[in-house]
Amino acid sequence: MQETVKVAVDAMGGDNAPGEIVKGAVEAVNEKPGIKIILVGKSEKVKAELAKYTYKEEQIEVVNAEEVIETAEPPVMAIRQKKDSSIVVAMNLVKKGEADAFVSAGSSGAILVGGQLLVGRIKGVERPPLAPLIPTTTGVSLLIDCGANVDARPSHLVQFAKIGSIYMENVVGIKNPKVAIVNIGAEEEKGNMLVKETFPLLKTCPDINFIGSIEAREIPNGQADVIVCEAFVGNVILKLYEGVGAALLGKVKQGMMSTLRSKIGALLVKPALKETLKSFDASKYGGAPLLGLNGLVVKTHGSSKANEVRNSIIQCIAFKEQKINEKIMQNIALKDE
Amino acid sequence: MQETVKVAVDAMGGDNAPGEIVKGAVEAVNEKPGIKIILVGKSEKVKAELAKYTYKEEQIEVVNAEEVIETAEPPVMAIRQKKDSSIVVAMNLVKKGEADAFVSAGSSGAILVGGQLLVGRIKGVERPPLAPLIPTTTGVSLLIDCGANVDARPSHLVQFAKIGSIYMENVVGIKNPKVAIVNIGAEEEKGNMLVKETFPLLKTCPDINFIGSIEAREIPNGQADVIVCEAFVGNVILKLYEGVGAALLGKVKQGMMSTLRSKIGALLVKPALKETLKSFDASKYGGAPLLGLNGLVVKTHGSSKANEVRNSIIQCIAFKEQKINEKIMQNIALKDE
Repeated sequence: MQETVKVAVDAMGGDNAPGEIVKGAVEAVNEKPGIKIILVGKSEKVKAELAKYTYKEEQIEVVNAEEVIETAEPPVMAIRQKKDSSIVVAMNLVKKGEADAFVSAGSSGAILVGGQLLVGRIKGVERPPLAPLIPTTTGVSLLIDCGANVDARPSHLVQFAKIGSIYMENVVGIKNPKVAIVNIGAEEEKGNMLVKETFPLLKTCPDINFIGSIEAREIPNGQADVIVCEAFVGNVILKLYEGVGAALLGKVKQGMMSTLRSKIGALLVKPALKETLKSFDASKYGGAPLLGLNGLVVKTHGSSKANEVRNSIIQCIAFKEQKINEKIMQNIALKDE
Repeated sequence: MQETVKVAVDAMGGDNAPGEIVKGAVEAVNEKPGIKIILVGKSEKVKAELAKYTYKEEQIEVVNAEEVIETAEPPVMAIRQKKDSSIVVAMNLVKKGEADAFVSAGSSGAILVGGQLLVGRIKGVERPPLAPLIPTTTGVSLLIDCGANVDARPSHLVQFAKIGSIYMENVVGIKNPKVAIVNIGAEEEKGNMLVKETFPLLKTCPDINFIGSIEAREIPNGQADVIVCEAFVGNVILKLYEGVGAALLGKVKQGMMSTLRSKIGALLVKPALKETLKSFDASKYGGAPLLGLNGLVVKTHGSSKANEVRNSIIQCIAFKEQKINEKIMQNIALKDE
């Protein structure tokens, strides 16, 4: 029998909390009997939402937290001062081992800071990267790092490459994942100082399948499984992906609605189009894991609905079953010391 | 009467040279009587192409250049050694004042290096930025810098903001253009070291309309007219724009062709869709200018067809008529000294 995976969930985080968060939690436990969820937040509100659903009561516990960290708050101060916030209370559950993982749609800054200050890094991991999966025409790629670690050093990027490879191989199931570094040309001599210094380190790194540079144009084609970059560039890639996608689909919609003829065509095209575009959507894989911590922390979109919350919770199962943190410890932390 | 604008064109550069280049040049002179074009390249080949068209002979001159710089060649060496290449010969025409501008679809690296080494910088300009126009849902924005100037300093970015404002106001015709710096959050304290140091300089810069940070997600919405960033990030933005666009439109096409029903719908949708997507395409504005040089250098896509070559040539008219370089000299170079 498999061990229960205990997931603390930030019931107050994101635009649709607590309604959609609680709904997603219920969907997750009703689908996976091996999960136990600890909903952290204003217990009265959370319980009122829970009352709407049917589920096995032993699978969901509510832990009260009176405060909420808002998105606009300076993260370090918020984590230090709001001791009774859902994020701080939940992260302390992970720290004490009472939860294996934490899922939140709340403030990215607070989650990144809290991850380091409260949950803590695995010994030897220099910087915990935030690593979302992004859709490609052939599947998904892991973009590592999109976090708050700007002005990274080459050694950080090498760790990102190793951690990302472990994640893609064991959680997403891609054998011997291809690793590439984001660059402004395909040749080894191209790039800024950081990339030029990191490239030879990745080339000689024995634990990864390094395939060289990747230009941003090629990222959507899925030519690499693990896409290594520092957080500023990663953040730009992640957000531009969403921005260009939304702008372009808006234009397509606008075009389809512009004439009577095109409106009729749109009705005929819609079901097939919806199906294809579903394959260009990474939300079914859950949120972005913050890797290299003593426990798993998953950041989902602030706009997450129940379905993405559910997927983010379910993703924690593979993370625990595949012993990702033990693998990171063995393959990275110890070797690097 | 307006002065003739003399444009040297690299007849050998790009995937479709010399055919499409010559065709674009002919289209430009047939449309604009005030242009004179100097086609630089293997004269026999160029003349054979020219023979296919009708045009006023005094508007097109052919200057022979026996060598061609290939895309894969290391740019500095190519510029130094291939003295009889189309790029070197044409840039020397600009240097000597025999041409006002140079348009090429050839090697980006060679064009960037040649611009600095042969054409030369305007006195006071620290680094000439490559600044393509990118499409947005509301029009176009200037992305400055996308060139080879990686590892930029704050003072460079301030110059990019000023040069970009002059270009957008005078060539594209946007009054008091809004300037923003690419960042990973909207708040002033966000960002990497470069952005944090540049932000207060832009904020206190009197000659520009600085509106603060822009997140990559917002770029396609046209919230800023001049988007300032260092070249590595600019290059990633430019190429990801193309990559995500192509991947997504590929998926839309695939969806439309997947069933009989959707195929019929696609036929009905197509004309309207084509019309709307045309508005999300910046190629009608021509290529990317390399700004801050003693003359204009324009880099068009390596895959440019006649239409883009034509637009790139025509864009040189506004550049000269609006006296962009004089304005850069007055507003930037002299003030900064």
